[in-house]
Order: sequence, then C-alpha cells, then structure tokens
Amino acid sequence: MTINIENKVVALAGLIAHGREEAFDYILGENTTKSAMEAITAAAAMLLLADHPILSVNGNVAALSPGELVELSNISGAGLEVNLFHRQPGREEAIDKVLRMNGAKTVLGIGAAASARIDEIYSDRRRVDPKGIFKADVVFVPLEDGDRTEGLVKMGKKVITVDLNPMSRTVQFANISIVDNFIRVMPLLISEVERLQKRDKVELEKIVSMFSNSKVLSDAMNVMKNRLGKLAEIGVFVELNTSM
Amino acid sequence: MTINIENKVVALAGLIAHGREEAFDYILGENTTKSAMEAITAAAAMLLLADHPILSVNGNVAALSPGELVELSNISGAGLEVNLFHRQPGREEAIDKVLRMNGAKTVLGIGAAASARIDEIYSDRRRVDPKGIFKADVVFVPLEDGDRTEGLVKMGKKVITVDLNPMSRTVQFANISIVDNFIRVMPLLISEVERLQKRDKVELEKIVSMFSNSKVLSDAMNVMKNRLGKLAEIGVFVELNTSM
Repeated sequence: MTINIENKVVALAGLIAHGREEAFDYILGENTTKSAMEAITAAAAMLLLADHPILSVNGNVAALSPGELVELSNISGAGLEVNLFHRQPGREEAIDKVLRMNGAKTVLGIGAAASARIDEIYSDRRRVDPKGIFKADVVFVPLEDGDRTEGLVKMGKKVITVDLNPMSRTVQFANISIVDNFIRVMPLLISEVERLQKRDKVELEKIVSMFSNSKVLSDAMNVMKNRLGKLAEIGVFVELNTSM
Repeated sequence: MTINIENKVVALAGLIAHGREEAFDYILGENTTKSAMEAITAAAAMLLLADHPILSVNGNVAALSPGELVELSNISGAGLEVNLFHRQPGREEAIDKVLRMNGAKTVLGIGAAASARIDEIYSDRRRVDPKGIFKADVVFVPLEDGDRTEGLVKMGKKVITVDLNPMSRTVQFANISIVDNFIRVMPLLISEVERLQKRDKVELEKIVSMFSNSKVLSDAMNVMKNRLGKLAEIGVFVELNTSM
C-alpha cells in the first residue's frame, strides 16, 4: 500500500497513524475476518437507512482509496465532506482535487463552506459544513480518533468507523466499528450496499439491530490473541513467512 | 514521544515505522517485560565481551535517544556509526551533528568514510565504515529491518537489536532481541553495562550462553496475547483507560 505526502494530501502525523494500522493488520493476519464482514454488512444497512448520510474524508483515506469513496458516495447517496485535524494551507484543496479527479461532483467542507462548529470536538475538525456533517444523521468516519467519534456520538449522530486497533477509543464509541484494513473494506462495503439496496426497511433495520459492536471488538481481539498464541508456540519464527 | 522530520534526521518511511512500533508497544502494555530485561542484561554482557563493538545509528534512533547512544558508546567502548537505508543529501551530516551535539567525539560512516561494502545487504546500508561495522564482531542495530540483520549475521557478526514486533524478521535473525520500546531500553542498557563492567569474562560469557532468543520472543508474544485476551473478556471497552 502506498501513501505519500508529496501532494499535501497526507499529514506527517498521518504517516505515523498509518504505521500503527500496519502493525495491527499484521497481527490480525491481513485478512477480513468474519466479524469484520458482519460489521461491513451492518454499516451498509445503516447507510441505506439514513436520511442524510455523510462520508467524512481525511488525508489518509483520500490517499488510500479515493475512487472507492466517490463510488460509495454515488451508490449510497451519502455526501462527501473533507474534515481535517490539520488544516494546513492547501491541504483541503488538495484532497478536494483528488476526490474530483476520481469523479466527485460535490465535495463539502472546503474553505468557507465549513462554517458550522461542533463544540464537542477539539481541533480544526470541529469546523464542519452545515449542509454536511452538521445536519447528518449517520456519519462514516474511517481512520479517525476517539475525540472526534465521541463528539459526534454526543451530538446524537450514528457513527460508523474503520480502525484496525480493536482497543482504540474510536471503536469503543462508534455504533459500528469495522476492524479491518480500510483498503480491503471499501470494495466490500460498496458491494454490500449494492446487494442490500433493494431490501425493505424492516429487513435493513433488523440487520442493524442484530449487530453488536462489543461482540465484533471482542472477536477481533480474540483473532489477534489466537494468532499471537499460535506464533508463540511455533518457537522457531523463521517458518513464519511460509506457514502463516 | 516526539519524532520530527524538520531537521532531516528522520526519513518519511521512518515515521511509518515509528507508528508500527507505537502499536506493538500499546499491545505490550508500554512496559519493559521480565524477558526484555533478560535480553537487555545479555546485550550488556555481549557488548562488554566484544573486541570491536559498534552501535549502528539510523535516523529514528538518533531522533529518539541521541544522548543515551553517546553515553552507551562511552561506557561500553563501542564505536558510533551512522548507517542509513535512505542516504538523502544532508541526512548523515544531520545525524552526525545531533550525535556531536550530544557529546560524541568520533562518528563513523559519514560520507567518504563509508567506503567498505557488504555484498549481503541491499540498499545504501551496504556502505559501511572499514573502521566500524565492517570489522566489528558485535553490532547493536536497533529499529532496523530484517535484510540488514540477516546480512550482518551471514557475515559472522553477532547482532543485538531492539524491535517491538516479536514477529519481525529482524528479531528472528538477531542473536539478542530486545522486544521493548527503544527509549525505555537505552537507560536500562546503560545501567546494565555499568553494573556488569567489573564482572569477569567467565561470568559474562555465562550470561550470554544462558540467553535464549526464541524464549524471549515467545514470551513477548505471550504477554501480548494475554493482554489482548484480558481485554477481549472485559467486553465493555470504555473501562479500558481506567482499569488497564
């Protein structure tokens, strides 16, 4: 997976965050688990049920899967809003450009458009678009931090996140946490939205209500725990690359 | 822990690597384990037994603990050599400067001094100082990658490393792997060298020969495994910050 900062899309702190994700993915086994897939299905249903869903875009997600973000926006009807912790000059415009190059028609939260303010959130991310996150009922906030998720939940929004750390504050506070690699999640989430698109509201509501966030988090930790246990038993780790 | 790239000491790829370390430290519990302490003691003994020990310095370690690197060099008699994967213009000079500002008198491997070549290693890191790594019997190579460690071991050198990922190729190939945070390791390693300085050779050799690298790696994985298992059982992760 390539991530670079040359075009201003990714902040330096984003590189460190990316490294943390890499480590958790390594322990997870670099696969989408069964429980992550359950979370993806529930997320698709929640997006389809929403009146005003928004996909929140930061530098890392724009660098990793810009085309899929636009596609998910198109098929789910969710708006795209750029929301950054670090609003350095030129960054939001660079992300806007990447999304538009990938086919986005409307991108919210750029420049003066981010005129509303969420008091519950600290940092530049409190600046949101009144047409976007501010009035949203469901917000997809992948690869974000706990403060932001907590702030959105306190405002009464439903939050879907993607984060490989099953112990992070983000995944604790979110309504639906997908513990998986963002670049693996996006195509799966798109195909689940497509699959569920024609189901009726009652069925979608059932999928969401059956979903347990604490269960998927426990499951992710158990997968990681079991993998580490297996590796610890092998003892000779040179076999690692071939046998696991 | 602060790490920045402003002064050219740290490469961008170093930030991602730093993030990976952060994640493993989080799972480990951000503590020096009993088995990591055993590895630190064995490393101190191995450095004291060496005829020509060298501390290999890359951007991340120079950014994290420059003063301790110089102190360890002084008390153990090991030379300091800058060895980089990415030899961008100005980087080795920047690291040389940081070490000298922290009291280093001699820094090997800078510019034309890195005139010897290790065929077993790919990348700029094959360029080494004939007075340093090239003729060393023991090399301390913290926060490095597997290729480098493997190359040094193939040359017949004894390798000590520090790496929080107990599954990395680096820790598999090294003779002594300290699975712990580099900034916690350095003061402990310095005090162990001080403590063992007056012991006789037979005693130091016994410490080294009793050390089992595969045992400490298994132990590190078990610590991580148990921590994840405990967290998975708690179920409600909002308690995480207070109870763990």
